[in-house]
Amino acid sequence: MTPTLQWTGDAFHGRLVLIDQTLLPLECREIECDTHERVFESIRSLRVRGAPAIGVAAAYGVVVGLQSAASKDPAEFRRRLLEVTDRLAASRPTAVNLFWALDRLKRVADEEAGLAPRDLIVRLLEEARAIEVEDQEMCAAIGRHGAELLRDGAGVLTHCNAGALATAGKGTALSVFFSAVEQGKRLHVYADETRPLLQGARLTAWELSQRGIPVTLICDSMAAQVMREKRVEAVVVGADRIAANGDTANKIGTYSVALAAKAHGIPFYVAAPTSTFDLSLPTGEGIPIEERKPEEITHGFGRQTAPTGVNVYNPAFDVTPAELISAIITEKGLIRPVTTENVQQVVNS
Amino acid sequence: MTPTLQWTGDAFHGRLVLIDQTLLPLECREIECDTHERVFESIRSLRVRGAPAIGVAAAYGVVVGLQSAASKDPAEFRRRLLEVTDRLAASRPTAVNLFWALDRLKRVADEEAGLAPRDLIVRLLEEARAIEVEDQEMCAAIGRHGAELLRDGAGVLTHCNAGALATAGKGTALSVFFSAVEQGKRLHVYADETRPLLQGARLTAWELSQRGIPVTLICDSMAAQVMREKRVEAVVVGADRIAANGDTANKIGTYSVALAAKAHGIPFYVAAPTSTFDLSLPTGEGIPIEERKPEEITHGFGRQTAPTGVNVYNPAFDVTPAELISAIITEKGLIRPVTTENVQQVVNS
Repeated sequence: MTPTLQWTGDAFHGRLVLIDQTLLPLECREIECDTHERVFESIRSLRVRGAPAIGVAAAYGVVVGLQSAASKDPAEFRRRLLEVTDRLAASRPTAVNLFWALDRLKRVADEEAGLAPRDLIVRLLEEARAIEVEDQEMCAAIGRHGAELLRDGAGVLTHCNAGALATAGKGTALSVFFSAVEQGKRLHVYADETRPLLQGARLTAWELSQRGIPVTLICDSMAAQVMREKRVEAVVVGADRIAANGDTANKIGTYSVALAAKAHGIPFYVAAPTSTFDLSLPTGEGIPIEERKPEEITHGFGRQTAPTGVNVYNPAFDVTPAELISAIITEKGLIRPVTTENVQQVVNS
Repeated sequence: MTPTLQWTGDAFHGRLVLIDQTLLPLECREIECDTHERVFESIRSLRVRGAPAIGVAAAYGVVVGLQSAASKDPAEFRRRLLEVTDRLAASRPTAVNLFWALDRLKRVADEEAGLAPRDLIVRLLEEARAIEVEDQEMCAAIGRHGAELLRDGAGVLTHCNAGALATAGKGTALSVFFSAVEQGKRLHVYADETRPLLQGARLTAWELSQRGIPVTLICDSMAAQVMREKRVEAVVVGADRIAANGDTANKIGTYSVALAAKAHGIPFYVAAPTSTFDLSLPTGEGIPIEERKPEEITHGFGRQTAPTGVNVYNPAFDVTPAELISAIITEKGLIRPVTTENVQQVVNS
C-alpha cells in the first residue's frame, strides 16, 4: 500500500511525499513536496484531504520550509518559521487540525528557543513525526474498539470516505473494517458513492480494493434497498463534528442512511477521535451547515447534467441525531448508549 | 412544448417520433422510429422512458413493425405480430404498462382475426392512438384528484421523472403539480437528481423550468435533510408497477424517500394510472427488479469516477411497502388508506 503521506530522508534534505488524491482512482501518483509552497498547494488543491491528514502534512510542511534556513542566525530562522506557518495556515482556512498542528510546532520552537537552527529543525521533525504517530495510534485504537462490533461474514455499509486517505493512519470508519479483517473476519463492504463529490466511489472503493477487501459500489439512493435485501447488518461512518449530546455532523446523506438503518433495525455506528467532539455545543442544532457551489450538482461529472441556471440547494453536511446512533467508536472506547453523560465520561477520560 | 411522443403519417408509412430524452436538458432533439427495432432500442436506451410513455411507444412500435408485413398472408402476418410484440416486450422488464399495451394490441388482433393484414394494421393504429388518448385523459384526471391534496404555498418533493416526458399526457406525479398550479396554488418543487441516470436533474428540473414552476434541484442524499428543515410538506412520486396490496415499485431511491417522509410525518403519495396495478401479485415481493449496467454508476457522464473493475450493484427500482404510502392517486380517484380492499375497489371501479 502506498501511504497517504510519508516523510523520506533526514531533517535537512528529506521531503514530504504524498498521494495526489485528485488523480484517484484512475492513477495513484505520488508527489514530492520539497518546498512548503508545494505543501501549501497540495492542501489547497485537495491533493491531500481529511482533517487529520492535513494536520500531519502541514507539520511536515514546516520542516521542508525551514530547510533552506538551517544555516541562518536564530532571529532570521524565527522569522522564516512564522512566514512558513502563516502561509500553510492559509491553505484551508476552515480545517481545525491544520491550526492545531502548526500551533504545536510553534510551541516547540518557543520551548526550545535556545537550540541552534539546525538542532531545532531536527526537533521539529521529531514533533511532526509524533503528530503522525499519534494519528496512527488513534486510528488503530478506533479500529480495535470498532472491530468488536462486527461479526465474521457481515455485510457492512459506509458513506463518504473516512479512510486511510483522510488520516496518517488507517482512517476512522474504514479502520474499523481493516481491523476486523486483520482479526480474520470476512466482511463485504457496500460503499455509497456519496454525491456530489463522489468520495465513496473515488476514494473508499479504491482503498478497499487496494487492500483486497470485497467492496460493492452503490448510489446513495440504493442504501435503503440494500438494507431491505438484508445485504448489510451494520453501518459505520465518520464524523466532522459531534455535539455534547452525540448529535453528529457528517457528509450530506449520512442522516438519510441513519434513518434507513433505524427502519431496518440495523445498528448505525459513528467512528471518530475524541478531538471531533465540540462539547461547547449542547446539541447538533448549533452546528452550522456549510452550503457549497451549485456546480458540484449541475456539472458533477465534467458535463452539464441539469438545465442552465436551475436553482440548487447543496448543503455539504447534515446532522444525525444521537437517538439514531447505536454507538460512537472513539480511540478511548465506545460511547454506548449515546447520551450526554456517556459522551462526557469517555471524551474526558 | 414539443410532445414527448407522437405518431405522424398514415398506418402504412407513418412513424413514431419521440424526444430523445438522453440528450435533455441540453438539447431537445426528436428521433424518428421507422422500425420496431428502433423503438426497442429507444425504450432499452431510455430515449423514451416512464411506464405510460413506454406503453404508448410500444403500441406504436407494433404498428411500425408490421408495416413491412402489410402484403403478407394472414398466417405470416400473425407470426410477424408475435415476433414484434415479443421483441418489444423484452426491452424493459419492470414496466407493466409495456406488457399491458402489447397484450391489448394482441387482443385486438385476435378479435379481428378475420381482417386482412392491411385493415388490421389500420385497426391496430387506431388502438395505439386510443391508448395514447386514454393516457392523456388519465394524466389530466390524476392531476385533478391529486391537486386537492396540496396546499397553496406548499413545498413538495419528487423523485425521478413522472412528468409529461414519462407519459403521452401531462404526467402522473408532475400532473398533480401542474394541476395544482393551474388551480392558482403556488408550489415550490424540490427535485431529487435521481442517480444514476439523473432523470430528476435532466428531466424533472427541465419540465418544471419550462413551465415556470419554481424548482430546486438536490442530490438524492439531501431529501431527508430537506424534510428535516421543513422545506417540504408532501412527497409525490410515480410508479412502475403496483401490487394488489399497494406495494409500489418505482425508480431506485423512492423507498429511501418514503422512509424519510415517514420519519418526518410527511405524507407520501404515489400518482399512477390503474393500468400500473398488477393484481396478480399479492404483494411487492413478486415484482422483478431490473439490474442495470455498472457503467451507469462508474462512468456517470462520460468520465470514469470509480476504480477500474470495481464491483457494482445497480438495481433500477425498489419497492416501497404500502404502509409507507399515504394515498395512491389514480385517474379513478384516491386509494386511501392503501389496503388490498381499497386497491381492488378503485382499480375495478
